[in-house]
Order: sequence, then structure tokens, then C-alpha cells
Amino acid sequence: MLTLDFHPTGRHFLQIPGPSPVPDRILRAMSLPTIDHRGPEFGALGLKVLAGIRQIFQTRHPVVIYPASGTGAWEAALANTLSPGDSVLMFETGHFASLWNRMATRLGLKPEFLGLPGAEGWRHGVQAGMIEERLKADTQHAIKAVCVVHNETSTGVTSDIAAVRRAIDAAKHPALLLVDTISGLASADYRHDEWGVDVTVSGSQKGLMLPPGISFNAVSPKALEASRTARLPKAFWAWDEIIEMNQTGYWPYTPNTNLLYGLNEACDMLLSQGLDTVFARHRRWGEGVRAAVRAWGLEIQCADPALYSPVLTGVMMPEGVDADAVRKIVYERFDCSLGTGLGKVRGRMFRIGHLGDCNDLTLMAALAGCEMGFRLAGVKLAGSGVQAAMDYFAGHPASLDLRRAA
Amino acid sequence: MLTLDFHPTGRHFLQIPGPSPVPDRILRAMSLPTIDHRGPEFGALGLKVLAGIRQIFQTRHPVVIYPASGTGAWEAALANTLSPGDSVLMFETGHFASLWNRMATRLGLKPEFLGLPGAEGWRHGVQAGMIEERLKADTQHAIKAVCVVHNETSTGVTSDIAAVRRAIDAAKHPALLLVDTISGLASADYRHDEWGVDVTVSGSQKGLMLPPGISFNAVSPKALEASRTARLPKAFWAWDEIIEMNQTGYWPYTPNTNLLYGLNEACDMLLSQGLDTVFARHRRWGEGVRAAVRAWGLEIQCADPALYSPVLTGVMMPEGVDADAVRKIVYERFDCSLGTGLGKVRGRMFRIGHLGDCNDLTLMAALAGCEMGFRLAGVKLAGSGVQAAMDYFAGHPASLDLRRAA
Amino acid sequence: MLTLDFHPTGRHFLQIPGPSPVPDRILRAMSLPTIDHRGPEFGALGLKVLAGIRQIFQTRHPVVIYPASGTGAWEAALANTLSPGDSVLMFETGHFASLWNRMATRLGLKPEFLGLPGAEGWRHGVQAGMIEERLKADTQHAIKAVCVVHNETSTGVTSDIAAVRRAIDAAKHPALLLVDTISGLASADYRHDEWGVDVTVSGSQKGLMLPPGISFNAVSPKALEASRTARLPKAFWAWDEIIEMNQTGYWPYTPNTNLLYGLNEACDMLLSQGLDTVFARHRRWGEGVRAAVRAWGLEIQCADPALYSPVLTGVMMPEGVDADAVRKIVYERFDCSLGTGLGKVRGRMFRIGHLGDCNDLTLMAALAGCEMGFRLAGVKLAGSGVQAAMDYFAGHPASLDLRRAA
Amino acid sequence: MLTLDFHPTGRHFLQIPGPSPVPDRILRAMSLPTIDHRGPEFGALGLKVLAGIRQIFQTRHPVVIYPASGTGAWEAALANTLSPGDSVLMFETGHFASLWNRMATRLGLKPEFLGLPGAEGWRHGVQAGMIEERLKADTQHAIKAVCVVHNETSTGVTSDIAAVRRAIDAAKHPALLLVDTISGLASADYRHDEWGVDVTVSGSQKGLMLPPGISFNAVSPKALEASRTARLPKAFWAWDEIIEMNQTGYWPYTPNTNLLYGLNEACDMLLSQGLDTVFARHRRWGEGVRAAVRAWGLEIQCADPALYSPVLTGVMMPEGVDADAVRKIVYERFDCSLGTGLGKVRGRMFRIGHLGDCNDLTLMAALAGCEMGFRLAGVKLAGSGVQAAMDYFAGHPASLDLRRAA
Repeated sequence: MLTLDFHPTGRHFLQIPGPSPVPDRILRAMSLPTIDHRGPEFGALGLKVLAGIRQIFQTRHPVVIYPASGTGAWEAALANTLSPGDSVLMFETGHFASLWNRMATRLGLKPEFLGLPGAEGWRHGVQAGMIEERLKADTQHAIKAVCVVHNETSTGVTSDIAAVRRAIDAAKHPALLLVDTISGLASADYRHDEWGVDVTVSGSQKGLMLPPGISFNAVSPKALEASRTARLPKAFWAWDEIIEMNQTGYWPYTPNTNLLYGLNEACDMLLSQGLDTVFARHRRWGEGVRAAVRAWGLEIQCADPALYSPVLTGVMMPEGVDADAVRKIVYERFDCSLGTGLGKVRGRMFRIGHLGDCNDLTLMAALAGCEMGFRLAGVKLAGSGVQAAMDYFAGHPASLDLRRAA
Repeated sequence: MLTLDFHPTGRHFLQIPGPSPVPDRILRAMSLPTIDHRGPEFGALGLKVLAGIRQIFQTRHPVVIYPASGTGAWEAALANTLSPGDSVLMFETGHFASLWNRMATRLGLKPEFLGLPGAEGWRHGVQAGMIEERLKADTQHAIKAVCVVHNETSTGVTSDIAAVRRAIDAAKHPALLLVDTISGLASADYRHDEWGVDVTVSGSQKGLMLPPGISFNAVSPKALEASRTARLPKAFWAWDEIIEMNQTGYWPYTPNTNLLYGLNEACDMLLSQGLDTVFARHRRWGEGVRAAVRAWGLEIQCADPALYSPVLTGVMMPEGVDADAVRKIVYERFDCSLGTGLGKVRGRMFRIGHLGDCNDLTLMAALAGCEMGFRLAGVKLAGSGVQAAMDYFAGHPASLDLRRAA
Repeated sequence: MLTLDFHPTGRHFLQIPGPSPVPDRILRAMSLPTIDHRGPEFGALGLKVLAGIRQIFQTRHPVVIYPASGTGAWEAALANTLSPGDSVLMFETGHFASLWNRMATRLGLKPEFLGLPGAEGWRHGVQAGMIEERLKADTQHAIKAVCVVHNETSTGVTSDIAAVRRAIDAAKHPALLLVDTISGLASADYRHDEWGVDVTVSGSQKGLMLPPGISFNAVSPKALEASRTARLPKAFWAWDEIIEMNQTGYWPYTPNTNLLYGLNEACDMLLSQGLDTVFARHRRWGEGVRAAVRAWGLEIQCADPALYSPVLTGVMMPEGVDADAVRKIVYERFDCSLGTGLGKVRGRMFRIGHLGDCNDLTLMAALAGCEMGFRLAGVKLAGSGVQAAMDYFAGHPASLDLRRAA
Repeated sequence: MLTLDFHPTGRHFLQIPGPSPVPDRILRAMSLPTIDHRGPEFGALGLKVLAGIRQIFQTRHPVVIYPASGTGAWEAALANTLSPGDSVLMFETGHFASLWNRMATRLGLKPEFLGLPGAEGWRHGVQAGMIEERLKADTQHAIKAVCVVHNETSTGVTSDIAAVRRAIDAAKHPALLLVDTISGLASADYRHDEWGVDVTVSGSQKGLMLPPGISFNAVSPKALEASRTARLPKAFWAWDEIIEMNQTGYWPYTPNTNLLYGLNEACDMLLSQGLDTVFARHRRWGEGVRAAVRAWGLEIQCADPALYSPVLTGVMMPEGVDADAVRKIVYERFDCSLGTGLGKVRGRMFRIGHLGDCNDLTLMAALAGCEMGFRLAGVKLAGSGVQAAMDYFAGHPASLDLRRAA
């Protein structure tokens, strides 16, 4: 048994924006004995999770499940649809958009990285207008794909994916639309088919409430068509063999059996509650956390209220305060993990996750941990965020649906 | 799998004074396959847990482990040491003292129930002087045993057991001293040998951080001697066969195998941390919770600060407030269980447990749940208990020992 | 984590007649977080398990669930229905009947112990004719209860309980009928109401496939009536308060929460399969094991084929062979536990359990372990029991129902 | 909870050559709560598993752990060391060698596939002489890598890797040596450094006794050097960033946290037993299983006794018998999974795994399942394999070390 002894007593509060706290039901489902991935039982499991995950992506088309963590699914989206030297248009919403951009370069693509300037740029979502303009200028259709992040895990800013679709259409441009909603899926509303996305990339360790280790590509017919001629080398990530074997519930190579047990349980939980209930729950949690941040007198990283993430909230520090010093205190004194600032905003903000196996009191605990951490770090606060969050949560009951749904 | 669906999302906050939250390490240890209770592996396990539990009772003498919950161990203490019609002197510290008194009557004993008057009496501990006086008057030594509760789970008041021992000795009375520390053991300091206790009764579901289902009698040589002539019928509870078979690590009948796995894990955790560390941790938690109660302007059930329980705090309601109505709101809106008022104080107070798998933020969550519950119930508060608890916890770091010990 | 390291590699084969191997579903259900035994969730759980267990006892009357192992339920059956000095008629079917008899004496009853003579007597079931004769002679109705064991765990002999009922009725005797089916319930057909039993005693660690720690009294209206005037002291075991509180799903004291999670799962498994399917499965396993014993040229402990236990098979050794020496080899070399001979038959036989989480190949493994153990111990065998069992299992498919039911 | 209900009762016998049965210790370790992959606890875990896995590969050089199943690690080995159009020399030992060959083609390499002719070729290991001859002919050193499989999971034939190294050296050829020991690691002796391997590929779901989902590249300094100039696109699989971040115990992207808990437990188990003990255990199991196959009068797929796999045994069917029809009977009647014949030998053989959480009686159960399955399928057998295996296992005790090591 692993006893690295980092938790003096009680449960750790895992309030990073993923990996999210995993419900006991899922942890126990994952601990069932491993089975033959070529036997009849596995086939039944495979068909069940493939059907379930399609509902969660809100798509009627194939969703490919990889036995690999989320970064792999980014690579899969690019490798299946593009050829060496292809131009792709990406938008810098934050650190993860930047990492995807860097990956595209490593794979031999030519990414063009649009964005608003500076660290301030990371406080806003994708600017569909800039994309439309750029595509209109690409009269030769050299750009083969537009790549955007739906929920920037590094900032807590979402983007309007439907608007990006409209921008591409307005430009009458044939580029594929590739979207990363690794941290958005199953917490924030996401509609693969309705929004006209060609490839949606996601992972297990966020809204699906699973440990990391499986990831996804939802694939439109247009993307599937593109994959037939795309020339980046692909084997492990290749859609063709997987989609074909998935018809009977199997995979061409060994899938991640025990995480699929967990996925099966997660689909049962989420779909029995109803996605709308799940989305409303996260929106409400986000409201409560932001009420605390405002009461502290601190800035929310997301500058556009329409784009507040229901998954996480970025909390900006006053001048001169090292966000990571605060995080360290909260971790060491109160056994609570917060998300570090990444890339351009390192040290200038931290992130509070409000996703996964969570509830009002879990968030109150995390906010109390932050507030005590601020005091111990000598940060001057305008008021008590904990009081403000209590005001919000006590004053805004979840609907009965939210409470009864499990 | 049990899915009764009472928990909409996230983990339930179990803040009753037992059953306490069980650490994951223990839950998983308990889920190992059941073994042959007559085989060599079981014998090794038996010897290990018997040695461990003696350290926790701070005794060199036998501790009998019953495959039964705590009420059974009460009966065992009486049945092994007493005969039909025997007089016993009991002290009314609260609801559990009253239940033990009632059990003595049911078993055919003649209990005499000392106590301070009324509900106010339940705000104080055992009055050793009253016991001494009564024993001195018993010149015929008709009283065969003195029975007291160390940590009254119904009130959050502890009692000075060493003082009771001194009282008996001062009266030069041969009565046995029987003590219930079902909810005190492994959270509050308790010394079976040093305090001269004859039988100590305890259970698994409190400081030992196990589910309910096993219970204990620590037995002094004098108690063992008494059991040889005591004439209450006893079979399942009889010490003689158990103590004899325990010498090789076995039981005369089927023991509670999987709970013993948990006990083994609990002993490892508690003893590797050190009992002093464990006791200090609970005292600190109690301080934080009481700071909150005072800030709310509410009364603490325990009227004597020297006797504050490190295990739980009783919170008295203002006139006209139904404590159970508040508890119901906290449960339904915030998925947090609080302990109900019992017996004489039903509806007039509730109880917050600060034991088991717990930490500062768990308690902050529970206190936030209470504070929001009070507001929703329309209870007028003097101030914010949550703020006061944050002041206390931030201002009083646990020693490094407390933090690193796991 | 418990790692006593008695299992070099692979899973232990637990082939004793209880505790039986616990299914993974149940072990995982038991590892869910402990809840408040006074909260609404517990009440729902309580009502569910109380309804389920009545179906398994095949009774419409109350079943009392004790947070204690099976020996406690024996005591409960006696203590609730009888008074000090009462005569009871017991029948010596084996070691457990003898232990129950000894308990009755310890509790101050006057048991009369009928039986066939010698060790040979342990190869037969209850002789209803002897009981009828004895009761007819008791014209004063001094005998207050008849106590018999339905499935003698020490021998593998069952008894005809309906015949005992008919004997009592034929004698027109008012004695209560108390039956121990600790090891029979949920493996062998048992009908509390139809057979006119007054108190049925059972436990968790056999056919219910749970770890030890809970036990049962099924109670007829006549037994309940008797309990109102019975004068043995009773508190923990007293039916009255439990049955009353059970109406809302609760217990008067702390129940064994996590084992009740397991019981809930066990009821779901057994009742979804159907009791007839469960009984047929065990009968078939018994046939296969007995085919092996016969092929080895060894005697089956049960001398009456009509009374073969579907739960376990007692295997008698040839003259001069120490059964425990064989068992030791099988344990040490093949990591398989067999049941020791008890009492009068110690060293002369061992027992193979065929209950719990078991299947044809589990039994083949156990039989191979026995056969290799016999060889290593130098026991001369008539032939291969393993071959005979393969002949039986291959030649006698379980019905489709047995195979598909899970 | 997943209850697909394919297992009527008892535990499934998973006797395929991987995924192997996972020990309870590992399943429970994997069910601990997920932690922050950027926090201090994770760093300590990371350093511990990285140190442990190097011992198991018997290397002092880096081992890269991928959050992806084994096929991904094949791709990683090629993508990190080779450039588009490179020639590689592969050897056809069976189905998995063929799949790796196909992957090389998909990735844009030019594999040359040596091998012995026909299905008979699959009964032998790598022919080092053929490799030496081919390399000597490659005077221009166009061949950049030699790729061989150490333990062919499709046949049960191992190959002499040290001999391949000697062949390359004898040819004075600079090609890298890439070896797949996905199914051999931690069951069969394997020495990355001593045998001069440049990249060793392995996975979690075989000798490491974990579920599928993580995989490995052990990397020699020469391979690392090659990776700096290799031009196949690589991002997710790229060694550089992973090896750098691994120095502090972290990964550049989200690792497979809960499987790493399992890996930590597996390393503890294997290294505390000692690798020699582990290897001897598997060799002994293989002997017992092959004794059964010979007694049945069937052919062992591996034609060269020096190359018998300690991990699995391929069992060839007599003319006219469909191996998959036998497998189906064994699965449906006896809840035991056997490995299907793959590729050229589909339907003509099946495979019995003797790895993972296994022991003598587990194998006896599996062999009894096979023997009954043969009978039910009407296969004429020369004799009883079950008897022969009992003869072997009873006659050849594991050394005390094997038995006591856990």
C-alpha cells in the first residue's frame, strides 16, 4: 500500500482544475478485476461506454477513446487530419493553447498563432472576428485547420466555439475546426455536432471525474474524410482501425480496461443526472467562488463575465504577492492543493478548481484555506471571501433537481 | 453496489461524534479477502492487534475484543463482574450514562443513579466527591461496582477518572471501577492502568476510526478475579475462554475478520504517530470549534472548561430554536451530518464531532455548513463563528509533529 | 495495509465451510464510507436489508439483525425465549450442536442432550422419532424448547427440520422449536414459516457470502409471545426494542454499518438469481465433490445420502492417517485452507467447503490440492478424485439459469 | 457499479497471456484518491517508481514511463530513434512481431522482415545467424535498427537477445537493437544493460501484474544520442522532455496517477521477493503446464525446449479441431479465459497464460477447465494432462524462497 505520508490526517482537498477529485463509486469500480480485452464481457462494456461517451460529447458520430492521457489526444487530432508542412491557425488563449501550438511545430506543421497581446490577452477568449479576418485573407486556402481551446485550464476563460464556427463559415473557408475541451467536457455545456466541430479533444481527469489515463477524439464525417488523405505518420493514434473495431466494442490494441470501468460508472452517473443538471451545478459553484474572490478585493483572471469558466476560477494576486507562496502555505498548513499559474502568469495568479466530486462545503473548505493562507502570507484583503461565498450559497439553493440528482 | 443516492455530489461531511469518518487506508484494508479464522495467518493477525490495542488502552493487562458493537461491551463489563441483584453506583453525566443505567436494571442489577439535578446536570462531569460520600456511607460494601462515563458522547463533557479512583480509595471501598470511554479512546488521553480502572469499555467507531462492529473490555487483574465468582449468566461475553485462546491469537468463536484488518491498520496509524500527537490534534480541533461557538454567541454544552471534550462539542440553541430543524437544513442543503440532542436535551442542542479522519478544513466546512444553516433557520447570531475558527486555526499552527505525523 | 505475507503469490483458496470467499462486489460495497446510523440514508438502507433478509429466511415475520457474530445469535435465541432453570431438549448432531448445548448450560438452562452413540452418531442427522418419543414422555411440559442444527458445519450432515416440527406436533407438545442454520442459510433450502420454526439462528459468513460480524434471529409470533415472559436477563440481545425501532429502519444501538452495505449487496445478488437457482448450484457442487471422495476410496462423513449437505463435505481418513497432517501440507504447499475435524472427529476427517464465491474450477483446484496433499502425505488412494469430479462437472452442466444468473 | 453479469458465480479464471490477473494489493492501491501531479507528494512517488522500474529492467539508464498502453511504446521506440524512410531489420517470430513490422511501415519506415517460412516458422525464436548474415551484407549500413521480440506472446517462444547482440557486433554493424519484451518483463529474465539493448519496450499488464495503461521505453545512451537527430515527428512520445522532467519525479504532461500507485506497489512486491525468485516461479509453472500438454498428446507450439516461455504455453490442436471452439466451451462452461490463436495460427492453437497473480492451484483449475473442454468438444486425448500436472507440481516443490516470498 502506498503510504507516502503527505497527508497528516483527514482527506486532502484537491482543488486544482484537474485531475479532479474522483468519486468513491468510480474508484471502486476501477478496482474490479481486469478482464480479457478480447472476451465477450469486454465487448459489451466497450459498446456501452462508446454509446455513453457519444451522449456526453453530444454527437452522433464516432468518439475515439485512447488508452493515453490528454496530450496524446491533441497529437491524435493533428496527426489524423493533417500533412507535413500544413498551415494551421491557432489562437492563444493561455498556456494550454501555447502548448498545443508548440506540439504542432514539433510535428512538422506550420502553426500561425493569433492572439491578443501580452498577459492581458490571457484574460479573454478566442476572438472569432480575428479568425474570420485571417481566413478571408487566406484566399488560397493554405490553412488546413483552425485550432482553439474551449475552456482554458490555465486561466478559467471559456471561448464561444459556435462563434468560431460562424467565423469559418462566414469566411467560406474549408479549414477543419479542431477544439480542445479537455477541461470543459462534462462540466461546461459542449455540443460537438450542433457547433459544427470537426475534431473535439478531451480527457478523463476533469469533468468525467476519472483519474488521468484515457482521452478522446470526437470525429466529424468531414474530419474522417480528411484522415484518409492526411500524410502525417500515424499508427497508435490512427482512427481507421479503432473506429472499425469499435463497431463490435473492441480495440485493435490493448485498451485501458480498468479506466473504462470507471468511464462506464461516470457515464451512468452523469447521464442519470442529466447533462443540464451537471452544467447548472458547475455554474452555481463558479458563482460562489467568484463572489469570494470579489469580496477579497482580488481580480478574477477572466475579464469577460460572459466567458467565466464553470470549471475553475483564476485568482490574480495584488502587485508584489507571489501566488505560489500563498499556494505553498495553503498546501502545507491546510492540506489543500490549488492550481499554480502557468506560463505568462506564473506567480501572478493561482487557480481554484470547482469540478469533480465536489459540493458547497468542499468549496467553503477550499475558500477558508485560501483566506487563511492569504492572512498567513500577509496579503491585505478587502473583506472576507468566505462570508461572501456563504452569502451566495445560502442565498442560492441549487434546484431540487440538483440536490436529488446523484 | 449500494447507490441509495442520498449524496447529490461530492463527499458527505460526517461530523457526528461517531461513527467517525473512516480513512481510506482503513476502508481498503477492510476490503481484503476474508481468511480462515483458524489458520496461521489469522493467528499472526490476532497477536498483532491484541498487542496494539493494549498500547492504546495504556494497559499491560488483557483487552478482550468482541465481534459486536459497543453496547455489547457495556453488557460484557457488567455480566462478567457482577451477580443478580448486585448494587452498582452509576453517575448521570448524560444520555449514555442513562442508557447504561437502564441496561443494568434490565440485567437484574440494582443500580443507584447519582447525579446533579436537571438538564443543567448534563453540563458537568462526574462529581467524585458525591461518589466518595456515597461509598463511605456504604459501610457494608453492598455496592459492588462504580460505573462512570469518561467522555459523554451526548454532551461533550469529559470526567476525571483518576479523581473517581481517588474517591473510591479515600472511601476504602472495594467496589470495582467500570468506565465507558467508547467515544474517548484514541482521541482523548486515557490510562487504564495508571488510573486504576477495573474494566474499560470502548468501541471501534470513534477514535479508532473504524466502522462500528467491534468493541472492547480492558480488564484489570481484580476484575478478572471477580469474574470467577460473578453469577450473571454469560457465554458470548465470557472473558475466560476468550482470554485463554487469545494467547495464541485466536478466539473461541468466529471473530470479525475484516474489521480486525481495519483495527490492525488503525493501530499502525495511531501508534506510528504517537498517542500524544493524536491527543494534541484533537484538543486543537476542539479549541477551534469552540471559538466558533462562542463567536456565534451560543453556549457550549460543557459548562466546565477543564472538562471540554476533545472529541465533540455540544452547541446549545437560543430559547425557541429547534436544534433538529437546524440540523435538517444543514443535512439537506449542505450534505453534512451533525449529532442530534439526546434524551433530556433533545431539540435544545446539537453536537459537532471533531474526530476520525478529519482536519482543519473539514472542520471549516462543517462550521460553514452550521453558520449557513443558522441563517437559513433564522437564528440570530452574535457574529461569525467561521471567522473565529479561521482566526484560531490560522493563528495556532499544529506543531510540526502534528502535521507530519500521518 | 495488512501485508502479513502468508500468500506467496496468487489468491488463497479458502475452502473451509465458512467464512466463505466473499465476492468482490461485496468487499467493495463494504468499503464505502460509513454513514450516520441516525440519518435518513441509513433508514432507507435498514428497511431495504430487513425486507431482503426476510425473503431469504422465507418468512413474513421479523428477522432481528445483530451487530455480532453467530455465537451471539445462539445466545439471543435462548435468552429471549427462556427462563433460568428451563429444560431444553437438544440433539447432538456434531460439534456445533455440542457447543450450543454447552452454552445453554452456561446460561443456567437445563439442556438434555439426545443423540446417537459415539463418533458414528455424528454421521447422521436429527432423529425426529427420538424427539417425539421424549416429548411424549414429558407430560408435564417441563421442556420449553427443542433445539436442533439444520446444517451441521462440523460434519456436512443436514437434518430434516420439517420432520422435527411434525414430531413436536405429533407429541402435542408446546415446546418452541429453535433451529441453527448458521451455515445452511442461503445455500441450502430453508423455510422458516413453512416448517413452523420459532427461532432460526443464522450468520453472515456462510451462504450470505459476507465476512463474519452480523447474525440473525428469525422470530415467529409464538416466540415473540414467549419473549414477553421469559426471565433470562437480556439487554443487548433483547428483541423488543430492536423490532420496534426496525419498523423505521433503525436500531436502538449502533449497527454494523459497513457489513449492512455488504448484506444489501448480498441480498441483491441472491434474490436476483432466485433462491432455487442458488440452492441447485450448491447441490451440484456437492455432487461433484462427493464424486471425488468416492473415487479416492474414502468415506463421506455423512452416512445418509438424503442428508448430504450442499454446503460442505466431510472426508473421513483411512485408519492411521492424521487428517490435520494432510491439511497442513495442502495449506503450506498449495495455499488452500480446508476445515479441520472438530471435537469427537478431530484428526479423523477434514471438511471441504463448497459455498460462497465459488465455481466448478475453484472446486477442481481445491480437489487437486487435496489429491496432491494425499500423495505427499503417503495416503493410498483407490483412484483419482480429480478425474471423477471432472467427469461429473463435464457431464452435468448447470442449467442455463445457473450459468447466466449472477 | 459495473455489473455486466458475465460471471455467474465465483471468480473468473483469467488465463490469457495478459492482461494478467491483478493482485488485490495492487487493485486497492490503484483505488486511492487521485493527487495533484504537480504537487510534492507526486514528485516523491515519481522518483520512487522511476527508481524501481530501472531495477526491473536491470538498467542504470533512463526508463521512460508513458501514460499509454504497450502499442504506444512500440511507436515511441521507432519515432524517437529513426527518420522517415529508414531501413529497419525485423524478425518474424509471430503475430506481434508482424504487427510491429506493420506499424513500422505505417510510420514511413522501410522494414525488412526476416523469418523462417510458414506457420512452422512461428515455432522458433529469432535466428541470430540470419541477422548476422544480413547485416554483414549491408556494407553501406543502410539498416538503422534491428527489431526483435523477446517473448512472443502469440506463440510462447522466447528469443536469445544476447545472441542477437553478438550477431550485430560480429557483423560490426552500427544498427540500434530494439527489443519488445512487453510480455516478458518481470516474468522472464531480461537484462537491458548486460545484453546491450538500445531500446526495450514493455507494458504494465503482464509480469508487472497491473491493468493495461502504462508502457515503457528503456533507453541506452546510444539510443538517446540517436534521438537527437532522428527526424520522425514526435511530441507525445518524445523522450527529451520526459527524461528531463523525470529528474525531479514529474512529467511534462499529465501522467497516469492511479496506475503509478499500482506500479509502486508492483515494484515493492517484485523487488522484495527478488527477481530471481520471480523468474524461477514462472519457469516452474511453465514446466507444470507443459507436462499437461504432453500428457494430452498435444504439441507445444514452441518447438525448441531451450526457448520455452515462462509466461505462456501455446497448445496446438490435432488436425480438424478448432481451437476457438474449445476455448468457447471452456469460457462458457467453466468461466475461464484462454488466449486465442492469432494470425497464421488462428484456430489451430490456443494459449494458456501462467503469469500474474497465479499459483499452482490456479493452474490446476485452468488445466482442469481445458481437459473438460477437450472432452466436451470431442477431442481425443492421449491421457490426462491434469494428472501429469499434479505429478509435476507435487513432485517439484517450489524452493522455500519461492513459497515464503510474497
